[in-house]
Amino acid sequence: MISVRVELGSRSYPILIGSGLLADTALIGREIFARQVLIVTNDIVAPLYLERLRSSLPNRVVAVCTLPDGEQHKTLATFATIIDRLIAERFHRDCCIVALGGGVVGDVAGFAAASYQRGVAFVQVPTTLLAQVDSSVGGKTAVNHPYAKNMIGAFYQPKAVIADTDTLKSLPPRELRAGLAEIVKYGLIADSALFAWLEDHVEEVLTLDARALEFAIKKSCEIKAAIVAEDERELGKRALLNFGHTFGHALESIGRYERWLHGEAVAIGMQMAANASLALGWLDSEQHGRIAALLSRARLPVVARGVAVDDVLELMQMDKKVAHGSVRLVLLKGMGEATVAAAPEPSLLRQAIAAQLEA
Amino acid sequence: MISVRVELGSRSYPILIGSGLLADTALIGREIFARQVLIVTNDIVAPLYLERLRSSLPNRVVAVCTLPDGEQHKTLATFATIIDRLIAERFHRDCCIVALGGGVVGDVAGFAAASYQRGVAFVQVPTTLLAQVDSSVGGKTAVNHPYAKNMIGAFYQPKAVIADTDTLKSLPPRELRAGLAEIVKYGLIADSALFAWLEDHVEEVLTLDARALEFAIKKSCEIKAAIVAEDERELGKRALLNFGHTFGHALESIGRYERWLHGEAVAIGMQMAANASLALGWLDSEQHGRIAALLSRARLPVVARGVAVDDVLELMQMDKKVAHGSVRLVLLKGMGEATVAAAPEPSLLRQAIAAQLEA
Repeated sequence: MISVRVELGSRSYPILIGSGLLADTALIGREIFARQVLIVTNDIVAPLYLERLRSSLPNRVVAVCTLPDGEQHKTLATFATIIDRLIAERFHRDCCIVALGGGVVGDVAGFAAASYQRGVAFVQVPTTLLAQVDSSVGGKTAVNHPYAKNMIGAFYQPKAVIADTDTLKSLPPRELRAGLAEIVKYGLIADSALFAWLEDHVEEVLTLDARALEFAIKKSCEIKAAIVAEDERELGKRALLNFGHTFGHALESIGRYERWLHGEAVAIGMQMAANASLALGWLDSEQHGRIAALLSRARLPVVARGVAVDDVLELMQMDKKVAHGSVRLVLLKGMGEATVAAAPEPSLLRQAIAAQLEA
Repeated sequence: MISVRVELGSRSYPILIGSGLLADTALIGREIFARQVLIVTNDIVAPLYLERLRSSLPNRVVAVCTLPDGEQHKTLATFATIIDRLIAERFHRDCCIVALGGGVVGDVAGFAAASYQRGVAFVQVPTTLLAQVDSSVGGKTAVNHPYAKNMIGAFYQPKAVIADTDTLKSLPPRELRAGLAEIVKYGLIADSALFAWLEDHVEEVLTLDARALEFAIKKSCEIKAAIVAEDERELGKRALLNFGHTFGHALESIGRYERWLHGEAVAIGMQMAANASLALGWLDSEQHGRIAALLSRARLPVVARGVAVDDVLELMQMDKKVAHGSVRLVLLKGMGEATVAAAPEPSLLRQAIAAQLEA
């Protein structure tokens, strides 16, 4: 088992990465320490891993809240059903909420943990690659508003993240690739060596080679943990983690959170951001080509069909990274180096987007 | 103008207390510094003070969200309407939400500020005595669940509290008295001199004598600020502020948040807590009598008619201060000295409650 620590003073916590963790009763019992435990999961994950986790929690009061699967359920209404359940079960302030599932489960369960009685203990048990390398780490919780993603939420750190890599064996390949998109992102924004490693090992990750997976997850969590430790509430550097996301969120909204997985929308968005970086002269065409090539080998989409450039631009205006009315974008200054910049001139931005759209 | 500071490191903020603050354009402009400002208020307060505040915010984008008055509107649905408004107005992360009103407006607007885009700037402009001495200070925000009060919320500190004592002139006397209940509470839990001062000056407070009011508000804010600075998230000492509240919350729920004002329910609850403290031998009967006498002179209710003791006990079980399944109560160890204690034996607790109930 690998352990990566997120350093946040009294709110520091470990990310535990390895095989067989869900069945490790000692570990689970130690990290999930409350008497009353609410496991929030979804109807895809529950049949696969719920009993494994439950068996590792003997002698507890365990309730389960099983959500329907999918980003379209990451809503205030779903949040309210979790709160209703906590009230109905008479869970106290010293209870613990456990998120067993992917990013949606983690985000909504985390916001419920942040808000129930103004905050109760929370443990993330991510079962998708995306959640293991990104959404379970760093304390961002949220639900979507019908008009914009992640608009309602809290910064609320978990007590622990338990990433059992065995759970990735049941992950649909499309979701595995979507998670890989975020690993590519870490390489691009912070670690050119990780990017180069991916160029050499992308197939091993896609075929679930245990050592490659553990390395990729560990590296990703280390990069994210370091950025979060420096800027927990996204006042500065943390915004770099949103590379590709301003474009991606707009696409997700256009696709009603159903057409693309988050990582897929981010892949298209990263290519748009790379286009803008190239047009600004911050990337050369060889670097730009390496990005396109790796995304292609990861079999991630980089083109959105039937999407109008004006719709993307309109929705980007609603993004949280807009400050004082002007869109701010994360762009690349080189491989492994990102910066937050005011959006480039409109025609350049339009072109960067349009190049990844098809009629 | 008096200024009391809440010391919370980088999240410290001032409580500004005085006459005419709402019309002080320089002060308002300095403390509410965002370009986009959403004023959340209610339909009683808006006709009285909204224009005064707006006039002090020239050259800003100001939107107003006017809620119906009353605790029964402190719901997740009301929270959602504020979020909808912020989205519709395309307010960005650097906006500011201003709560102009009493505790309900402050609590729900504060939870919206805590949650919109995971947290935006928030300023409290309390217009009731209760809000000026208690709910606007210390960062507790929440909405009610149909089955229990303040179950959904966040600890989220404002950037400033602006308490214009002129606004108390329009306050119905009943609400003034409800606010006075919390001032009595501060005396009982932390400052026997304040309690004695109230015994000498309660009529001056009730007739809005300016110097008496400012003194009572300042003292209350100082006591609360000191406790919050020591224990922001209510892991210890802050629980003392809930003196009378475990009983009071149960009564409010029984009265569907309509029958008693919060401060009235707390007054009854304080008398119940005093009864229990007397029965435990922690208060003598002279002290117990002084409490009853002051509450009576403040014309606060101390008796609940048509309420069953079992209903009160049942609802107290849902209170947030329940730990490991047993009710914990704030009781008095003397005048100006409170402690968190396990609930006394059932028959003693029943009697302490029943003494304030009438058929």
